[in-house]
Amino acid sequence: MPFPAAEYSARLKRLAGLMKQSNLDSFVIISEVNRLYFTGFKSSSGILVLTRNEPPAFYTDFRYLETARNRIGVATVRRSGVKKGKPFHQLGLLARRQKWKKTGYEGAIPAGIFTALGSALPPEAKLEESGGLVRNLRAIKSPREQAVIRRAARLADELFARLATEIRLGMSEWEIRLLIRSLTDRLSQGEAFPCIACVGSNASRCHHEPSARILKQGDELLLDFGLVADGYMSDMTRTIFFGRPPARLRKIHSLVLEANQRAVEAVRAGRKCSTIDAAGRRVIEKAGYGKYFGHALGHSLGLEIHESPAFSAVDNTRLEPGMVMTVEPGVYLPGIGGVRIEDMVLVRRNGCDVLTSAPRPVVID
Amino acid sequence: MPFPAAEYSARLKRLAGLMKQSNLDSFVIISEVNRLYFTGFKSSSGILVLTRNEPPAFYTDFRYLETARNRIGVATVRRSGVKKGKPFHQLGLLARRQKWKKTGYEGAIPAGIFTALGSALPPEAKLEESGGLVRNLRAIKSPREQAVIRRAARLADELFARLATEIRLGMSEWEIRLLIRSLTDRLSQGEAFPCIACVGSNASRCHHEPSARILKQGDELLLDFGLVADGYMSDMTRTIFFGRPPARLRKIHSLVLEANQRAVEAVRAGRKCSTIDAAGRRVIEKAGYGKYFGHALGHSLGLEIHESPAFSAVDNTRLEPGMVMTVEPGVYLPGIGGVRIEDMVLVRRNGCDVLTSAPRPVVID
Repeated sequence: MPFPAAEYSARLKRLAGLMKQSNLDSFVIISEVNRLYFTGFKSSSGILVLTRNEPPAFYTDFRYLETARNRIGVATVRRSGVKKGKPFHQLGLLARRQKWKKTGYEGAIPAGIFTALGSALPPEAKLEESGGLVRNLRAIKSPREQAVIRRAARLADELFARLATEIRLGMSEWEIRLLIRSLTDRLSQGEAFPCIACVGSNASRCHHEPSARILKQGDELLLDFGLVADGYMSDMTRTIFFGRPPARLRKIHSLVLEANQRAVEAVRAGRKCSTIDAAGRRVIEKAGYGKYFGHALGHSLGLEIHESPAFSAVDNTRLEPGMVMTVEPGVYLPGIGGVRIEDMVLVRRNGCDVLTSAPRPVVID
Repeated sequence: MPFPAAEYSARLKRLAGLMKQSNLDSFVIISEVNRLYFTGFKSSSGILVLTRNEPPAFYTDFRYLETARNRIGVATVRRSGVKKGKPFHQLGLLARRQKWKKTGYEGAIPAGIFTALGSALPPEAKLEESGGLVRNLRAIKSPREQAVIRRAARLADELFARLATEIRLGMSEWEIRLLIRSLTDRLSQGEAFPCIACVGSNASRCHHEPSARILKQGDELLLDFGLVADGYMSDMTRTIFFGRPPARLRKIHSLVLEANQRAVEAVRAGRKCSTIDAAGRRVIEKAGYGKYFGHALGHSLGLEIHESPAFSAVDNTRLEPGMVMTVEPGVYLPGIGGVRIEDMVLVRRNGCDVLTSAPRPVVID
């Protein structure tokens, strides 16, 4: 359990407040990441059940029972049956005894689990999609979470600094990925996502898988990677040139960097996410490259690499202090190459802290 | 695309046959792993749409479009809107045009996606949980898949051989995990799952997370790990003793090894999965340790680490040639320690091939 029990109690208490507002008498939390968020305990199987008048209960199977009992301080740990569906049978009994009327569930759980849950509960217990309540809680990072995320971001900087001295001409994309992975393992608890390493024109594909392509003098190299520190993730992208880049890519690099900076400057509590997306996008559109920037400007992150809200044209969430987001404009020219520059920001009342600080325009000669 | 296009065409053809049998006129495949299975293309976003009379269509967003067009040979690639819900809007139009009556979906997709899909389709299009059709296809590995899985299993053997020479007394569980990870990265495309390394009494918790506990002379060490080769996974567990183990653990090791061997000998096409579970479990129950073996005997694996069917008491699936399963009995004594011995088997007409061959009773002096 990375944080003291008080952290988890506080999270559960905030959720209880939201449940009351939404008139939920119960909430069945099944997704792995949300169980982790509320208990500090990681397991591939379990159900956290929150009700109005009884303490939280955590059902899990034989494999996790002993560890769960040792580690979970905020819920009563009970053994779920090993037979399929049995945990829902237990829930059905509980729901009948407590006369559940409105039960929250997460839209992210599998459709099959959702329908099984529906059949196990009594007909009076109406299921209501309430994953948004948890997403909203998770969007605002507590001071303890902020400290861990800052560390994850510093580790990304550190990794980039080491990379810059260890990458050599003649390496393949696969070898560069392996180098990033081995540095990641030395510095942290592992990769936040499979890192992206694109050489030359491959950088026009934002989610390129590594190939045998070799890094040569004059090539660009786009690196997108993140690390995990105590369960929290960082995410950073840099585009490096080996030798002086062609004029077109140089121009695009300046453009993307400017879009990144205008967007970062726009971030502050109270503004809409879509406003920040527009602040970055406008720079690229004005230069005539709008159609080569086909993704959102950024996303929230924390226990997961993509959380809510997003810096996208359709997300009108108001920023709040404690949100952590990426700012990652990009321009991708098929067959030529692409530039993306991604930083992490922590939203504050009057602006933001940029959490990643690795140098941005990097030419290695 | 790791396999030739013929492999994916054959898979789609088999699914088309099953759709006909189940009277489905359409099938919407959303889960990442099943999209990969049918197209060979990996992406975090996409929808594969199969219908009776038109070729398969693959919808994906801007980020993957160029790569998808280059790599997918078996489906027409179309751009899905970047706006939320738009891909379902496109599906709604298609369903109306083609007059869908019965549409398959996978129970594994998120409940929120399922309900959104339901609202986008016309009321005549009845959604039917059909994930089982794909699970049944995926359970039987093709000769190409078998070759890749054999390689993944051999890499697990190779990793274990190197580990045995590199693990030292004085290492912590965290350091042992890091050692396994760095060997995994050198040998393969990465870990199949976060490896488990339990020292001493920690081995009584089958899904223990690493701690700072140090490996000392006289300790046991339980290692459960797997690698990825061309997208396919291996999974192996060994329990090693550093110095002569106490009599009780020695006895349990022999018992678990016998259970493993009896179960492996029982595997052959035509038998029920539950029969194999019983063949292993009986050995442990007879010795009076039944209640310390609380999980199923094994599971299928391939593109995912847990696939269907399972060697469990409640799974009566008949084994078929080409299934790949783990056999992993265990006995866990809280506060004392635990032993698990896990191998991979390929089901054949008259028996099975054991794919993992690392030595089983390992004492390091």
